[in-house]
Amino acid sequence: MSTWGGRFTQGMDEAFERFNASFGLDRRLILEDIEGSMAYAEALEQAGILSPRELRRILEGLGEIRDRARQDPGFLADAEDEDVHSFVEARLVEIIGEPGLKLHTGRSRNDQVAVDTRLFLKKAIGKVQQGLKGLMGELLSQAKGRPDLVVPGYTHLRKAQPILLAHYLLAWFEMFSRDRDRFDDCFRRTDCMPLGAGALAGNAFAVDREFLRKKLKFSRISANSLDAVSDRDYLVDFVSAGSVTLVHLSRLAEDLIFFSTPECGWIELSDEVTTGSSLMPQKKNPDSLELLRGKTGRVIGNLTRLLVLLKGLPLTYNKDLQEDKEALFDTLDTLLESLQVAQVVVRTLKIDAEAARRALEGDFMTATDLADYLVRKGMAFREAHGLVGRIVLECERQRIHLSELPLSRYRQFSSLFTEDLFQALSVQHSIEARSVAGGTSPARVAEALSRAEESLTLRNPSERGTSV
Amino acid sequence: MSTWGGRFTQGMDEAFERFNASFGLDRRLILEDIEGSMAYAEALEQAGILSPRELRRILEGLGEIRDRARQDPGFLADAEDEDVHSFVEARLVEIIGEPGLKLHTGRSRNDQVAVDTRLFLKKAIGKVQQGLKGLMGELLSQAKGRPDLVVPGYTHLRKAQPILLAHYLLAWFEMFSRDRDRFDDCFRRTDCMPLGAGALAGNAFAVDREFLRKKLKFSRISANSLDAVSDRDYLVDFVSAGSVTLVHLSRLAEDLIFFSTPECGWIELSDEVTTGSSLMPQKKNPDSLELLRGKTGRVIGNLTRLLVLLKGLPLTYNKDLQEDKEALFDTLDTLLESLQVAQVVVRTLKIDAEAARRALEGDFMTATDLADYLVRKGMAFREAHGLVGRIVLECERQRIHLSELPLSRYRQFSSLFTEDLFQALSVQHSIEARSVAGGTSPARVAEALSRAEESLTLRNPSERGTSV
Amino acid sequence: MSTWGGRFTQGMDEAFERFNASFGLDRRLILEDIEGSMAYAEALEQAGILSPRELRRILEGLGEIRDRARQDPGFLADAEDEDVHSFVEARLVEIIGEPGLKLHTGRSRNDQVAVDTRLFLKKAIGKVQQGLKGLMGELLSQAKGRPDLVVPGYTHLRKAQPILLAHYLLAWFEMFSRDRDRFDDCFRRTDCMPLGAGALAGNAFAVDREFLRKKLKFSRISANSLDAVSDRDYLVDFVSAGSVTLVHLSRLAEDLIFFSTPECGWIELSDEVTTGSSLMPQKKNPDSLELLRGKTGRVIGNLTRLLVLLKGLPLTYNKDLQEDKEALFDTLDTLLESLQVAQVVVRTLKIDAEAARRALEGDFMTATDLADYLVRKGMAFREAHGLVGRIVLECERQRIHLSELPLSRYRQFSSLFTEDLFQALSVQHSIEARSVAGGTSPARVAEALSRAEESLTLRNPSERGTSV
Amino acid sequence: MSTWGGRFTQGMDEAFERFNASFGLDRRLILEDIEGSMAYAEALEQAGILSPRELRRILEGLGEIRDRARQDPGFLADAEDEDVHSFVEARLVEIIGEPGLKLHTGRSRNDQVAVDTRLFLKKAIGKVQQGLKGLMGELLSQAKGRPDLVVPGYTHLRKAQPILLAHYLLAWFEMFSRDRDRFDDCFRRTDCMPLGAGALAGNAFAVDREFLRKKLKFSRISANSLDAVSDRDYLVDFVSAGSVTLVHLSRLAEDLIFFSTPECGWIELSDEVTTGSSLMPQKKNPDSLELLRGKTGRVIGNLTRLLVLLKGLPLTYNKDLQEDKEALFDTLDTLLESLQVAQVVVRTLKIDAEAARRALEGDFMTATDLADYLVRKGMAFREAHGLVGRIVLECERQRIHLSELPLSRYRQFSSLFTEDLFQALSVQHSIEARSVAGGTSPARVAEALSRAEESLTLRNPSERGTSV
Repeated sequence: MSTWGGRFTQGMDEAFERFNASFGLDRRLILEDIEGSMAYAEALEQAGILSPRELRRILEGLGEIRDRARQDPGFLADAEDEDVHSFVEARLVEIIGEPGLKLHTGRSRNDQVAVDTRLFLKKAIGKVQQGLKGLMGELLSQAKGRPDLVVPGYTHLRKAQPILLAHYLLAWFEMFSRDRDRFDDCFRRTDCMPLGAGALAGNAFAVDREFLRKKLKFSRISANSLDAVSDRDYLVDFVSAGSVTLVHLSRLAEDLIFFSTPECGWIELSDEVTTGSSLMPQKKNPDSLELLRGKTGRVIGNLTRLLVLLKGLPLTYNKDLQEDKEALFDTLDTLLESLQVAQVVVRTLKIDAEAARRALEGDFMTATDLADYLVRKGMAFREAHGLVGRIVLECERQRIHLSELPLSRYRQFSSLFTEDLFQALSVQHSIEARSVAGGTSPARVAEALSRAEESLTLRNPSERGTSV
Repeated sequence: MSTWGGRFTQGMDEAFERFNASFGLDRRLILEDIEGSMAYAEALEQAGILSPRELRRILEGLGEIRDRARQDPGFLADAEDEDVHSFVEARLVEIIGEPGLKLHTGRSRNDQVAVDTRLFLKKAIGKVQQGLKGLMGELLSQAKGRPDLVVPGYTHLRKAQPILLAHYLLAWFEMFSRDRDRFDDCFRRTDCMPLGAGALAGNAFAVDREFLRKKLKFSRISANSLDAVSDRDYLVDFVSAGSVTLVHLSRLAEDLIFFSTPECGWIELSDEVTTGSSLMPQKKNPDSLELLRGKTGRVIGNLTRLLVLLKGLPLTYNKDLQEDKEALFDTLDTLLESLQVAQVVVRTLKIDAEAARRALEGDFMTATDLADYLVRKGMAFREAHGLVGRIVLECERQRIHLSELPLSRYRQFSSLFTEDLFQALSVQHSIEARSVAGGTSPARVAEALSRAEESLTLRNPSERGTSV
Repeated sequence: MSTWGGRFTQGMDEAFERFNASFGLDRRLILEDIEGSMAYAEALEQAGILSPRELRRILEGLGEIRDRARQDPGFLADAEDEDVHSFVEARLVEIIGEPGLKLHTGRSRNDQVAVDTRLFLKKAIGKVQQGLKGLMGELLSQAKGRPDLVVPGYTHLRKAQPILLAHYLLAWFEMFSRDRDRFDDCFRRTDCMPLGAGALAGNAFAVDREFLRKKLKFSRISANSLDAVSDRDYLVDFVSAGSVTLVHLSRLAEDLIFFSTPECGWIELSDEVTTGSSLMPQKKNPDSLELLRGKTGRVIGNLTRLLVLLKGLPLTYNKDLQEDKEALFDTLDTLLESLQVAQVVVRTLKIDAEAARRALEGDFMTATDLADYLVRKGMAFREAHGLVGRIVLECERQRIHLSELPLSRYRQFSSLFTEDLFQALSVQHSIEARSVAGGTSPARVAEALSRAEESLTLRNPSERGTSV
Repeated sequence: MSTWGGRFTQGMDEAFERFNASFGLDRRLILEDIEGSMAYAEALEQAGILSPRELRRILEGLGEIRDRARQDPGFLADAEDEDVHSFVEARLVEIIGEPGLKLHTGRSRNDQVAVDTRLFLKKAIGKVQQGLKGLMGELLSQAKGRPDLVVPGYTHLRKAQPILLAHYLLAWFEMFSRDRDRFDDCFRRTDCMPLGAGALAGNAFAVDREFLRKKLKFSRISANSLDAVSDRDYLVDFVSAGSVTLVHLSRLAEDLIFFSTPECGWIELSDEVTTGSSLMPQKKNPDSLELLRGKTGRVIGNLTRLLVLLKGLPLTYNKDLQEDKEALFDTLDTLLESLQVAQVVVRTLKIDAEAARRALEGDFMTATDLADYLVRKGMAFREAHGLVGRIVLECERQRIHLSELPLSRYRQFSSLFTEDLFQALSVQHSIEARSVAGGTSPARVAEALSRAEESLTLRNPSERGTSV
């Protein structure tokens, strides 16, 4: 049974029929389609289009379809309907007969697919939020497990200044916190009920949209029927937020791949998240992290897809919009599996404290502290910077550390140097000096850990399934 | 004067020097750079690094640079400094000597460029909000000017159902309202003060970041120094929001190009926003709208650029990030000029009411109302839909309108048809039937107009320059 | 059976195992994997690693796997192997025992997947070429069917000058010709045999790569083993070429959607490629064309995906590369089905000659010819252009055609006008005047048709399955 | 002077005028615009539209404009013309008066900008080819300077197998060779002369397009006038090829950033291509490489821009196309400066042979050779792989190298082991074993160096400025 056809005299070309059918994809919306249809049937009964008896039969029929959809994989797999909406309507008519032919009164697939997708996306965002919190929880655990460990901090992939490992891990926590915030924004914009917009101009049977809103647990209704059926901004918002999350994961992956090279060595990845080579027996490769990095292209590609899709589309609904589904589903699946794998990677990370200590020794990591030392003794910073640069050069030529240059040689550079300079060069001193809010000093990081822990216990609006 | 160099023995390669220099771009941040430096100098004085006298001289020097930057275009144009930060520091030292060498104490270009960019972006978003409101105001004016005019509503670029012109214009109003909301979200995430993060590990001179926050009018400070210098999410948020706005403008452009073709004819574009052909004397081309549509590629391209840039970058700062500026500036400029031109286009639109009336006559635009008529008489909708489809086919063969088919013929299709069917076919009846919230009925559209008008008088957080 | 594991003490995390497995995707390469393995086994036998008997058993085993893969869908569906390579090796060992454990000698999945993908892509390009030719053939048929029909030519979606329908259709033929050329280039770069590169450094068992090349029908071998395993340029080339083809199809779709609106009306789409509305009984929507336009985003998104994937990857093989498959498969499938549907659309197009004639009447389509007329009488073109512009304005005010303005009024504009001006205004005259090579005059278009017909009979290198 | 306006009664809105004007960008095409105009004037004279005297004056006038454009920067900077075509025509009329008004006869800006851009792009590609060859020359020099040096080869950023440095450098040579090939393809498709297509339908004055082709040094003329004015495929081809080149550079950058970390240490970057930190005196950052990597986003963004721009555009010319210029110019500039900087980086690389030697010691880099050893003694490879994996695990636990495990312990793993196993473990043996074509053995690499050297002496078609 097709939902249209009266004014056509010829059937569809076969190749076009396959091209046109979306059931292979949108059947994933079946539970939401049924949920929306049940609410709509109630609204039709209230509007006098359905009798109470017809309503009851429709609800029973839809319930039966929902149960089969949940239990019998073949039920959906074998169908050849045009789309999920046609599938449900056809099955309903098969089960309950005539009342099923009334369900679509005043409704269009245009507002129907919009409400289905928004229902689906609201749940999806809740799952993503859980995934983010799961990963953040592991970052926090690792940070709390080693509150005092110092590791090299990098800029430009060159050692820069010592930092606390906990401070490093909390940097990622911050990024994923922003992601939670961004997905909440997306949720808020998704949480708007479009049903009742009809094909484009609004519903002609005075269904109570406020009733539909409450029934379907939305926090507001769409204000303009034309916009309601042509809007896909919420999908762009979702895939855009997802792109940022994947970019964060790609950066995390890049760092952990590097830190776990034997060349760095102070992070070790577990066997559980590495794989071997089919040819080289010694290899233990960070495939989990490489895949996380690689998945970024996928989600950014989905974002490009959606934006290209929407560019230049006339109002209101156009069939092009059918192509929006895979971008949504693929982004969701990628996000969930990526967050889960990242969580395992972080949970199973091992830190080699001794290797970290060795890594802090070379490469003049406290040169800035030496310049700061001179500043505190009255030298202008820019001058101190230049002078310490020359000292570094000298040490590099001699292949020694800053702490190995004798005081007498230091004093040839500047008479401001006295014995206490060597204290300023210590890693611990360097860490403690950065005591501003947000800095790496132990006290500040302890505060940050508490705040992070607290924030994790909060539930986002989008986790509660409502934006109000 | 360079801000570094002590540990180098050889100068930069010339080609690399040009490649590396960003002053050609980031000089656009000069006022923000000075604003940030003034606040930082005060914080240094409070921290005891600068004497009150040194502070005064620095503030005077920076003030002088700011004045010249505002008044003398050549001042910036001729400089060969590496970047805007080096430029300001070098000029400052030229003007006030030694105290200038102290300004950078404890600060890095890493936290400096972050605060500059955030200051700039906060103002930028305010301007974009003004641009959006300007366009929304014109949409509203056009809608209020013709509250009763009916025009054809389209799906699939085929006439679908009659709608009020005001309803059509308010659909765009809705989209741009969402854009305002999205830019507010972006503002909120931008409104975070990174200064004091130093190179990556935090400031070692205990500057008061809370003081800096208030002075620079931010609503909060960054919580983690590593994240503060490597985060560019706010730029992605901005360009992503801009992409959606441009997609909306491209869709508006597409519609208006089509509706203003002689083939449609019920919209006319003003001479002020059209141009001619160098070869064909009769042409009057909708270049303004085509350019709006074309600009979409530009902003989506900027989004791709940023996401590719960030993908896989290790923490914390990497020089790649220097490439973020043009995406920001170009997106901002494109948004502002596009919104302004769209505003002019909408303001100067003329509606040909007679052409609109003619456009509503053909193409069976009230066929749905005929099916709804049968539903109200008791027929199941799916059946009514099929039956009306066959009536349409019949009229098409006879090349007549639905209203031209005699009642007797209608009754051959169904005995439910009586004389009142012709009333159901009227455009006015069709409009009024869609009386649900968000529908196109005159009463609903009048409500929507009031709400829209009201919303335009509100000021967004990002227009007030603060997110608190 | 896994192809690695000796040096691991712990199993994979389950979530990571799912994340890591690519068999769901790459099993589509199974025939190529077997083809490559058969050739490789022969090479190993030549190199003395396998005995003739072992070779025979391996070839039989692989043959059996190939046959089952072709005949039994469940064979692949139920497997839980890591990837297609592991699947084939595991099945082989199950079937033939020990000799199967020797097949991977000197080979890595790194060079194996490269040869599989190139074998697959070479065939894929051949299919795309067939699809392009199919569509081009239909364009040509339509053009030949109506060699003399004149239709309006557009710039800026505004009528510009009359053109022959055949000339219009041949414009698309040109675009798809370039696409054929571009896919040939891609084929040439794909047609390079990587097997023997090993994991990265080359094969250590002196297999004869020239033998492998001939056996697998490549035209050359890869010159550098490191490059051979990390190169994915050929996939970018393919998806890039595919993006251009989809852009062409999106433009064709846009034009045909517009020309088949009732507002234009001179093109009619067949019922076979249109669909109805679930709500509005009168609708006949150009879904086939809208989907073609929408698919563009998909392929451009795949291109973005691949480029993001490759950006910043270190040499040589990284697991990120596993993410390349879907971009290839999805682009191929989209290309093939889109070309097929476009072919049906073009084949079933109907042209309403009468509507085309009417469309040519208004809108001053021969105004340029009027300016040209003046030029031929000696007026400078720029002056003639301005003067005709004013005549158009005059006619527009009077709501008349250029041919309806009396000669006397023309002569007030310029005394160069005489009675023959009305001939210059005719559509036929306009068409015939554009008689340069590539122009729309009937003689030129007839030539172009012949050339097009001839070019279609040629077989591209990539159709012959070889680039030599 | 505008090139149009007769049929307009109102001037352009100011904001739209700025939005519409492209002179700020397209003035970069001025020399090509004049070149095309000179040829076109000659063709007009041949067609009898210009007298020989008029032609002479036009050529003189255009020559004068060309000279000023070359010599006086202010000439172009101060102009306020709509575009480069209007600029040249306006100046020409100012200089020579009336004959200048005849130059545009039969020509449109639509075919004019197409020929200008193609002329420009052909030269541009020649420059890119030079840039590629420059970089390839430096790679070759480095390779030839150290023909025997062995370095670690990586997969998954983990040490994999020893390779020759020259082999490594030649991998990049291969990639850039493919880029040359790809730019040649792009050149071939660009090398097509569109002038004479007019606005869309062809030239009405029978100009000799074959003459224009020869004069402007194209190898063929466009076959269809509609396609000629709407085609921008050649720009997509160029930016697409540029994206691949930048991806290659980003990968090179990634590798060199890693290999030049102190953690790896066997590559050192010159002071000439590194910069310091404004805060940390010890830093020497690989900014040149980071910028190369960052520029990738820019060019991929340009590709997205172009594809979005073209998606869904109706035939033929639309003003959207004006937005194509920056993508071209920015990609060209980025390519040229990136190739130049990459060349300097490679030229100034220093290799620390001692560090490379140390890097080869650990991490079991010849484990594959050990498995191969067992294979040569008759063990099945898959079995040997597993056994060596267990040996690696044992060594890792004992923190020893493979060569440090005693023979007796080896023989507990397999009695196939004899004293000669230690020879198989040597780096030199490993290198020499990979002696297949394309492998890393010294003999093969020497061959590859010769071939590379030879290929560099060849001139590409696009360097000769012709594709025939």
